[in-house]
Amino acid sequence: MNNFKPYFAVIFTSKHTNNISGYTEMANKMEQLAKLQKGFLGMESARNEVGITVSYWESLEAIRHWKINTEHMLAQKLGKEKWYSWYNVKICKVEREYEFKS
Amino acid sequence: MNNFKPYFAVIFTSKHTNNISGYTEMANKMEQLAKLQKGFLGMESARNEVGITVSYWESLEAIRHWKINTEHMLAQKLGKEKWYSWYNVKICKVEREYEFKS
Repeated sequence: MNNFKPYFAVIFTSKHTNNISGYTEMANKMEQLAKLQKGFLGMESARNEVGITVSYWESLEAIRHWKINTEHMLAQKLGKEKWYSWYNVKICKVEREYEFKS
Repeated sequence: MNNFKPYFAVIFTSKHTNNISGYTEMANKMEQLAKLQKGFLGMESARNEVGITVSYWESLEAIRHWKINTEHMLAQKLGKEKWYSWYNVKICKVEREYEFKS
C-alpha cells in the first residue's frame, strides 16, 4: 500500500430503453475514443438487467476533458434521447486496491 | 452538489474458473448478508466476460467490518479455492454523482 498512487474511477450504471438500435456501434466507438484520451487508464463493462461500465483515469481533469469531448457529447445526447431510460454517474477516487490470481 | 455527502464504493471485478458449482447460491447468500450490515447502502452486479459488482457503504469502517465478517471470510476462501481465477478489489471514495431519468 505504501507506494499506491491514487487515481480516479467513473462508475456508469444504466438501464436501456427497448430501442437500442445503433447502441453497440456507438459504445464500441466511444470505447476506442476513450482509449485515445490523455489520462485514460482502463475500462471494464458488463450488462445484465443493469449495465455497469467503470472507466479509470489519472486525474479529475482527464475525466472532465472526456466528459466534454465533442464526439462523446453527441453520444451522450443520443444516449439520453434513445438508448437509456436511466443512468447514474459516480466520480470516485480509488484509495486502495488489491488483487488475487490463482 | 452542495449538499453531497461522500460515501464509499467497493469495485469488485472478477473472472470465473470453469467450476462455478455452488457459486450462485453463495453469491445470493452474501448479497442478503451484506444488506444486513451496518453502513451498507446498496449493491449492483453484472457479468459477461468479466463480472463487476459494486457495493456502496457509508464509511471505510463499514467496509472493513464486512471484509472480516466470519461468513463472508468463508465465502472469500471458497472463492479463491474454487470460483475465481482472478479478482481485483478497489476501495473508492465517491466524490460526485449525477443521474438521468427519461
